[in-house]
Amino acid sequence: MKRQTLVIVGVGLIGGSIALAAKRGGVVGRVLGVGHRQSTLDRARELGIIEEGFLEIPPAVAEADMVVLCTPVDLIVEQVILAGRHCPRGAVITDAGSTKTVIVRSVEKQLPEGVTFVGSHPLAGSEKRGPEHAQEVLFQDRLTIVTPTESTEGTAVSLVCDFWQALGSRIKVMTPEDHDRGLALTSHLPHLLASALAGVLPEDLYELTATGFRDTTRIAAGDSSVWSGIFQQNREAVLAALEIFASRLSEFQKALTTDNVKALDSLLREGKKVRDALGN
Amino acid sequence: MKRQTLVIVGVGLIGGSIALAAKRGGVVGRVLGVGHRQSTLDRARELGIIEEGFLEIPPAVAEADMVVLCTPVDLIVEQVILAGRHCPRGAVITDAGSTKTVIVRSVEKQLPEGVTFVGSHPLAGSEKRGPEHAQEVLFQDRLTIVTPTESTEGTAVSLVCDFWQALGSRIKVMTPEDHDRGLALTSHLPHLLASALAGVLPEDLYELTATGFRDTTRIAAGDSSVWSGIFQQNREAVLAALEIFASRLSEFQKALTTDNVKALDSLLREGKKVRDALGN
Repeated sequence: MKRQTLVIVGVGLIGGSIALAAKRGGVVGRVLGVGHRQSTLDRARELGIIEEGFLEIPPAVAEADMVVLCTPVDLIVEQVILAGRHCPRGAVITDAGSTKTVIVRSVEKQLPEGVTFVGSHPLAGSEKRGPEHAQEVLFQDRLTIVTPTESTEGTAVSLVCDFWQALGSRIKVMTPEDHDRGLALTSHLPHLLASALAGVLPEDLYELTATGFRDTTRIAAGDSSVWSGIFQQNREAVLAALEIFASRLSEFQKALTTDNVKALDSLLREGKKVRDALGN
Repeated sequence: MKRQTLVIVGVGLIGGSIALAAKRGGVVGRVLGVGHRQSTLDRARELGIIEEGFLEIPPAVAEADMVVLCTPVDLIVEQVILAGRHCPRGAVITDAGSTKTVIVRSVEKQLPEGVTFVGSHPLAGSEKRGPEHAQEVLFQDRLTIVTPTESTEGTAVSLVCDFWQALGSRIKVMTPEDHDRGLALTSHLPHLLASALAGVLPEDLYELTATGFRDTTRIAAGDSSVWSGIFQQNREAVLAALEIFASRLSEFQKALTTDNVKALDSLLREGKKVRDALGN
């Protein structure tokens, strides 16, 4: 697969890494970037991430073969529709958003004939931001979830899968709904817990934190408005995951309150068993 | 300060690192190790961590200048008293346990004249185990909390502080009770949350975990019986910390249920603010 013109909307850590990985993978002739700050676009150009920067989507996508939206999830629907109106027939649009149902279902049937959107979510990232943190190996051996629906055109799905694989990623195809239910537990809930834990730490205890607290809360440093958008779009699945967790927490609380050593041991062993199975 | 004979009881990651750091810091002539498995002691000797290994405390401490207990917290009280009975007058005993009140208060007045126990807790460690993971830099620039009481002899406190400083550590002196209340929130609660989160992950979602889930649950891989002992010894403070956290979780739940974007944003921002302040 050879893509001539790749347009990245949102040239931050993820968008920048996609650009670098696509160039390294040889699947792109040139990369154009869209951003709302000229300074970020200039930095991305200086870093060799994009060839040209645009402040608006329409002129950037005029010759696009592929467009990847790497913006906060609450902006993606609108941007896909805008890109769809201005890109050439045959172009494929995808994204890197952490939620899929709202995006995929809202975009469906809103694109012109010949332009296809296929939802994607690469499970890679960092709490860091900006093109200066982009890495061409960010997707190496990571999983990218591709979420077509019953009405997505098959050729476009293959093309998007090939694209992520060329970036070094493994692929899993899921429905948007299954994606959102799964990620609620594996990504959105952990973020919520990390944020809640960090949020209750009084300042006089900062110095008593070590690697345990720091690892456990690391993702709470992520952009709060980005995460607010994710939680809003995946509200129900996140609430369901939160309920499962809260019930587990009650079991811990009960084991402690009643000094039930056996129950406590068993809860801790179960957690360790899962964590050991995940590896590093 | 020059310690002739250092005895490490429990030659694992922490005990081994203390031995290596003490040798590097030049504060020890020889290091003797006590363990309940001959194979671990042999490995520690081969790794140059200890000069000699013992399966029992009494013969090991006969010429000790300093004894450091690096065993699970539920064993420490008994071992301090045993070591106290068999070490020479003038010896100082300390520990590396994650709880302090039960240990320090139980040991008080149970040691012979001339032998002093001073509680310590180096805030360093890992979910890994065994002397092969010992690192001489483990305490470098980390905080060690030293917890004397109103009746602890001052010279012994200085000696223990000097010892940890020679290992590269910074020192904070606290009461055992303040230590336990603080660590309940900064260490024991995070472990409980990590374990609860890992414990609710169904096997079919393992592949959907990325760095976020892995960082957040990393410490859940810690030895479950060690952590069970910590939770039991610091039950009340952990329950109090859990209550603070559960109340925060309810705020998140309420913000999501009522679709209160402002409240959600504010909770996420507070978490980010604290996490950013902690640094890496």
